[in-house]
Amino acid sequence: MPHPWLADRTRLFDASGIRKVFDLGAKLADPINLSIGQPDFDVPAEVRQAAIDAIQSRKNGYALTQGMPVLREKLQAAVQREFGHADRELFITSGTSGGLMLALLVLLNPGDEVLVFDPYFVMYEALVKVVGGTVVLVDTYPDFQIDLDRTADAITPRTKLILFNSPANPTGAVAGEATVRGLAELAEKRNVALLSDEIYRAFCYDGEFVSPAKFNRQTLVIDGFSKSHGMPGWRLGFAHGPAAIVREMIKLQQYSFVCAPHPFQWAGAAALDVDVSPQIEAYRRKRDLLVAGLADDYELVVPRGAFYAFPKAPWGTGTEFVQKAIEEHQLLIIPGNVFSRRDTHFRISYAAPDGMIERGIEAFKKLARR
Amino acid sequence: MPHPWLADRTRLFDASGIRKVFDLGAKLADPINLSIGQPDFDVPAEVRQAAIDAIQSRKNGYALTQGMPVLREKLQAAVQREFGHADRELFITSGTSGGLMLALLVLLNPGDEVLVFDPYFVMYEALVKVVGGTVVLVDTYPDFQIDLDRTADAITPRTKLILFNSPANPTGAVAGEATVRGLAELAEKRNVALLSDEIYRAFCYDGEFVSPAKFNRQTLVIDGFSKSHGMPGWRLGFAHGPAAIVREMIKLQQYSFVCAPHPFQWAGAAALDVDVSPQIEAYRRKRDLLVAGLADDYELVVPRGAFYAFPKAPWGTGTEFVQKAIEEHQLLIIPGNVFSRRDTHFRISYAAPDGMIERGIEAFKKLARR
Repeated sequence: MPHPWLADRTRLFDASGIRKVFDLGAKLADPINLSIGQPDFDVPAEVRQAAIDAIQSRKNGYALTQGMPVLREKLQAAVQREFGHADRELFITSGTSGGLMLALLVLLNPGDEVLVFDPYFVMYEALVKVVGGTVVLVDTYPDFQIDLDRTADAITPRTKLILFNSPANPTGAVAGEATVRGLAELAEKRNVALLSDEIYRAFCYDGEFVSPAKFNRQTLVIDGFSKSHGMPGWRLGFAHGPAAIVREMIKLQQYSFVCAPHPFQWAGAAALDVDVSPQIEAYRRKRDLLVAGLADDYELVVPRGAFYAFPKAPWGTGTEFVQKAIEEHQLLIIPGNVFSRRDTHFRISYAAPDGMIERGIEAFKKLARR
Repeated sequence: MPHPWLADRTRLFDASGIRKVFDLGAKLADPINLSIGQPDFDVPAEVRQAAIDAIQSRKNGYALTQGMPVLREKLQAAVQREFGHADRELFITSGTSGGLMLALLVLLNPGDEVLVFDPYFVMYEALVKVVGGTVVLVDTYPDFQIDLDRTADAITPRTKLILFNSPANPTGAVAGEATVRGLAELAEKRNVALLSDEIYRAFCYDGEFVSPAKFNRQTLVIDGFSKSHGMPGWRLGFAHGPAAIVREMIKLQQYSFVCAPHPFQWAGAAALDVDVSPQIEAYRRKRDLLVAGLADDYELVVPRGAFYAFPKAPWGTGTEFVQKAIEEHQLLIIPGNVFSRRDTHFRISYAAPDGMIERGIEAFKKLARR
């Protein structure tokens, strides 16, 4: 029985299915771990050095709520160059998830509806519910591309927000310019807020990244350094959007996250000068390696970005397939129903050493042909 | 006019009055800054080195949601030694405020009442409101000691939680053992949750710190390294309490804070082996210096802990007095109404170099005698 003091909202979310696979993986001696949503490369050496310099030069006290000027002004200038919106303001968050939580708290009243494209990043559904919102799923199977008509049909008078994520977790899908423009214009026309989660924007392999903020000045963008610079454990992100909304997020940050870790803000400023294209190029090759390895046996929409693939299970449900993969090959992957109402697919993360991906491919071949 | 997309809860909080003084102070050339709620000493050298070693040895990825065993197990063992509660579980949070936010989200339904002792730490009121709770203030003037009868009278069938903070911000008051025991037993008898914010527990100058968890096994404790080890910018805290509640907080951490900064968890483990008594002793002397300096001119309850004093304004309201202090002496302090329904006092932080405190005392003398 749950503890009698627990609030009703604790019934709205459960331990993430990703964590359950993690916990399982921790018990295995030598797993083929393709379940992890973080790069396998380390923070670049000069960025680590900048963090160390900050720690050794007394930058360990509270940072400014909105972030240290050394980082904030640099990012603000870059965003200004990219979009040229006079009203766009930026602040530093505790990771992308910190920006997402503040955005939802600042935007959603209880009962407000939020459009989420299925499959979706697992945090979206849980956080919307915690804040009192209602998730309305818009299906994107089988190609994981957003259908604008279906999206328009899902908008009701209670729709407050559309959560958009390209390149996407868990599918690796990247929305093309026409779709991004269409979605941005739809949100504007219907007076619905649009949040663009751009944490994987550096990981686009077959074309340029396109932000909906290019077509809709009111777009709220969340982004961060976790994936592009291998520092998810540093909890450093940023958010930018209409000043009136961003200022409320900053106000609420005072009473919740307080500030992003101070020394890492100095490191983030150094990170902006580091070329991560070799890392991205290596991930493109990992993508190609995995796609080629699965081609004969799996139905797979070729992922154009992020570092995930989302193939269809060749037999059974996603959950049944993943169970066998773990039992028979110590192959850690995530069942699709963690990210979706459907249980037909599974997520592979190729953020792993090439040798691990190759071992994974061998196991996938055996699993499909068993 | 506020942006039409903003949720109703954004009207429930405003920029903190502390921030307003900060912003003002940033414009002054050479202020006497006694407004800051963080130690003036740096992180101990061996703790900085532990953070650097972690950064240089690839501890930059996600930490476990509940915290890294290196830190969590050490803290769990210490808590076990102190309280011996079989059911007490501990996890690592993003600062004390991270623990507070998760606790409130996990405990409070909309409309639930939370008892807060006035004067109170400014974050309490804002966060309770953001989560949908109702703050019920229990007055502690003029001596800032908790009156148990008054507290019992404030409990209604809607009371879910009592927020307790000793040593206290902004008064420096430390609750004696009889009061702590009485409050702990009252909460248990009335089946109300009790949250003890122990972030200043290392800063007790005139006696031992007493936790209500000693007398009430269901007490939820939040604590951290920010004050005791000079690392508020590292966002490292912890929370412990009944397993059924702590596990819900950990679950919600997955979808919000994700994890406390990973390398700093390794540094936190090293911090547990560092003797900070020289720092505490220095702060006791700062307390004595300030109390002696104000004795002739101010009505002041001698603060027994934390690093704040909360004197009565010798003339005018707290706000009027602080305005003059800033205008005439560039003396940055915080008006009492930031922490209270009353506007009669002001907060001094003596977390400052001795020379700054001495300059402050001179200014305070002139202000009282003007």
